[in-house]
Amino acid sequence: MTPEIRALWAEAVGSFLLFATVIGSGIMADRLSGGNVAVALLGNTLATGAMLFVLITMLGPVSGAHFNPAVTLVMQLSGAIRVRLALGYAAAQVLGGVAGVWVAHAMFDLPVWQVSHHLRSGPGQWLGEAVATFGLVLTIFGTVRMRPAWVPASVALYITAAYWFTSSTSFANPAITLARALSDTFAGIAPASVPGFIVAQIAGALIALATASVLFPADETPAKAPA
Amino acid sequence: MTPEIRALWAEAVGSFLLFATVIGSGIMADRLSGGNVAVALLGNTLATGAMLFVLITMLGPVSGAHFNPAVTLVMQLSGAIRVRLALGYAAAQVLGGVAGVWVAHAMFDLPVWQVSHHLRSGPGQWLGEAVATFGLVLTIFGTVRMRPAWVPASVALYITAAYWFTSSTSFANPAITLARALSDTFAGIAPASVPGFIVAQIAGALIALATASVLFPADETPAKAPA
Amino acid sequence: MTPEIRALWAEAVGSFLLFATVIGSGIMADRLSGGNVAVALLGNTLATGAMLFVLITMLGPVSGAHFNPAVTLVMQLSGAIRVRLALGYAAAQVLGGVAGVWVAHAMFDLPVWQVSHHLRSGPGQWLGEAVATFGLVLTIFGTVRMRPAWVPASVALYITAAYWFTSSTSFANPAITLARALSDTFAGIAPASVPGFIVAQIAGALIALATASVLFPADETPAKAPA
Amino acid sequence: MTPEIRALWAEAVGSFLLFATVIGSGIMADRLSGGNVAVALLGNTLATGAMLFVLITMLGPVSGAHFNPAVTLVMQLSGAIRVRLALGYAAAQVLGGVAGVWVAHAMFDLPVWQVSHHLRSGPGQWLGEAVATFGLVLTIFGTVRMRPAWVPASVALYITAAYWFTSSTSFANPAITLARALSDTFAGIAPASVPGFIVAQIAGALIALATASVLFPADETPAKAPA
Repeated sequence: MTPEIRALWAEAVGSFLLFATVIGSGIMADRLSGGNVAVALLGNTLATGAMLFVLITMLGPVSGAHFNPAVTLVMQLSGAIRVRLALGYAAAQVLGGVAGVWVAHAMFDLPVWQVSHHLRSGPGQWLGEAVATFGLVLTIFGTVRMRPAWVPASVALYITAAYWFTSSTSFANPAITLARALSDTFAGIAPASVPGFIVAQIAGALIALATASVLFPADETPAKAPA
Repeated sequence: MTPEIRALWAEAVGSFLLFATVIGSGIMADRLSGGNVAVALLGNTLATGAMLFVLITMLGPVSGAHFNPAVTLVMQLSGAIRVRLALGYAAAQVLGGVAGVWVAHAMFDLPVWQVSHHLRSGPGQWLGEAVATFGLVLTIFGTVRMRPAWVPASVALYITAAYWFTSSTSFANPAITLARALSDTFAGIAPASVPGFIVAQIAGALIALATASVLFPADETPAKAPA
Repeated sequence: MTPEIRALWAEAVGSFLLFATVIGSGIMADRLSGGNVAVALLGNTLATGAMLFVLITMLGPVSGAHFNPAVTLVMQLSGAIRVRLALGYAAAQVLGGVAGVWVAHAMFDLPVWQVSHHLRSGPGQWLGEAVATFGLVLTIFGTVRMRPAWVPASVALYITAAYWFTSSTSFANPAITLARALSDTFAGIAPASVPGFIVAQIAGALIALATASVLFPADETPAKAPA
Repeated sequence: MTPEIRALWAEAVGSFLLFATVIGSGIMADRLSGGNVAVALLGNTLATGAMLFVLITMLGPVSGAHFNPAVTLVMQLSGAIRVRLALGYAAAQVLGGVAGVWVAHAMFDLPVWQVSHHLRSGPGQWLGEAVATFGLVLTIFGTVRMRPAWVPASVALYITAAYWFTSSTSFANPAITLARALSDTFAGIAPASVPGFIVAQIAGALIALATASVLFPADETPAKAPA
């Protein structure tokens, strides 16, 4: 198996476990919390942040551990991976991720095929997604360049914070936005709300790419690959 | 004392503290939470994840810190330990773990001998156990090969996530499944439900072993012992 | 761009994200918690601590990651940065931070311009702010000198603790005190209460500076820059 | 100032902040939680664990960061410090710690002088204290010998778990037991219950010392000072 094929499998398996965690912990939290949404969000946040740490720790050396087409896009624009591999990453993220959503449904004895009715829209939510993705991409570039050993902890803790400080609870990922449209549960998003979220995410990611080039210039700071 | 005897003691003492934590924090959380099960699960999760980090940090260099016959099984299959020692590990895990359950009962002034009446069964729960153990074993193989310094944090955080995203709250361990059958408290499982859980756990562990051989091949990735 | 200009941008961007997190997670927690203030404070704490870790990890090597005029003051007094740059830091912290507050309001569809009506005053609260800032500055000096790799985790966890153990929920930062006066939400503080808080914060910071010179003398302990 | 005097100050300042955190976060959690004791214990646990990490990180290199006469006792028995210094440590721990309790009361506008009426007694609680202190001392010896860089995280996470899995919520410290007798708040303990707790703590600490000599023999494992 070539390293590139292995990287595609890593993106698929990682997205499978990550998206199963987002959906599954949302279902569990919603069922157990007795209507206290803050308690449910605590459980959902804890599970998502913890799983991100694990997946980036073990799959980062294999594929970079993107699990997110917005991250793959800015990595491609910054020259880290070629266009064709980037497209493969995006496909692996969506396919692995949707499988994770479906397995989450099956684990909780819910119909596998679902479509969300949860509308998430409006300028506040879109600004939330742009800010969430801006911070995520800035975190990735900043920690990869400055303190690569702390990339897993930083990305996990960034998402932990972003679930709480952004009005949209921080999807920050086009693949997970698509996949969550296929879940009519706590973490779902109606298909009609998907395009607005994805546009905002890409805008935030591009602004972060520009900001990172100022704050963390490759020629003046310690540039190391994550390890 | 030979290193192998010391390793058996490490497995017994570690399983004692781990299982006492799972049962004890379940009792505490259940008593204090006033019926809000999500809050109870937060306390149970926090305690279990924290204790796993501690035990793997200090006992990993002594025995590998399995505390789990499914982990010992795949380690044996991958050639890390011999069959006879593996059987000793499993015995130490069950004996130490049951002692931990009984001490937890005694601490909370409950009858030491109990049998759970909590049925946990059905395809969703079995799928949950298979996914939970798949992820656990993949995490162990991936982090041991890729970033061994982060094994304790990764395993602790994996279980933290798995308590929330799997429908079964992630037993993921045949020894703890047996031991929890001896506790009619928050974390218990009825004896009739034990075989289904253990079969699912072993299935998940074996699938993870195969997946790890693809994602983390021993001959191409940095292979280091945990340290 | 000179390193000093880049440091000013790092202070502004970091304060933007930090203050947006404090205000945004306060709004989210307040809305979702159904009146259980302890649950709301858990969400607010988790988000703030997590974001601090991320920002100090990536921006520490660029600017020192102060985001706090009281920290900049004691760093200036200890000879770490020059007066003129310190004034620039304070301006960047306030300007970036107020922008963060306003973006938080916009994300949650609230009026951007607000003034808090939340009075926080009295000897207990002032003592709380003095203790909170004392501990923060002691943590920074102690970890920078003793274990610089652990500065981000230590500062993040110190604030996590201080949100809970001080009666004022630990503002511990004159810039965030000013900025929170511009938010009539969970985390706000009435303008009339601001001067008392800032005086207490500076007193606590100066006592910590003296204490640190005893506990962590520069000539006897391993002095390294944070890395 | 000699290193020994500095170590005594470190024990006093560390105990001051630690005990203020235990009492202060207990008061805060109790006030905000609206009677949900599990939520209160989450806040109390989070603050205590976080503060322990910070204090051990920065004061470990100065004094060893005991903050606990039971730890000082087993360190003395294992030959790490001399008897006279050990007595000084215990005095600094009690004096600094009581000051911390009193400052916590003052921060929350409570009478400084209080005596607890909270009876904590009986075989279950005593067993809880013995188990809690056994685990704490085992954690300290095991991580100091095996992975010294992880001592602060391990001790902090051990106490995080122990607050939940022991029936007594893990005092595990004779100095804090004495100091908590002087607080009629969430974390208090009636003076009549103090001796039983301290006897159980010392028993648990001595059993751990014996267990550690088997599991972590000094002559066969990597012996390094914490760093």
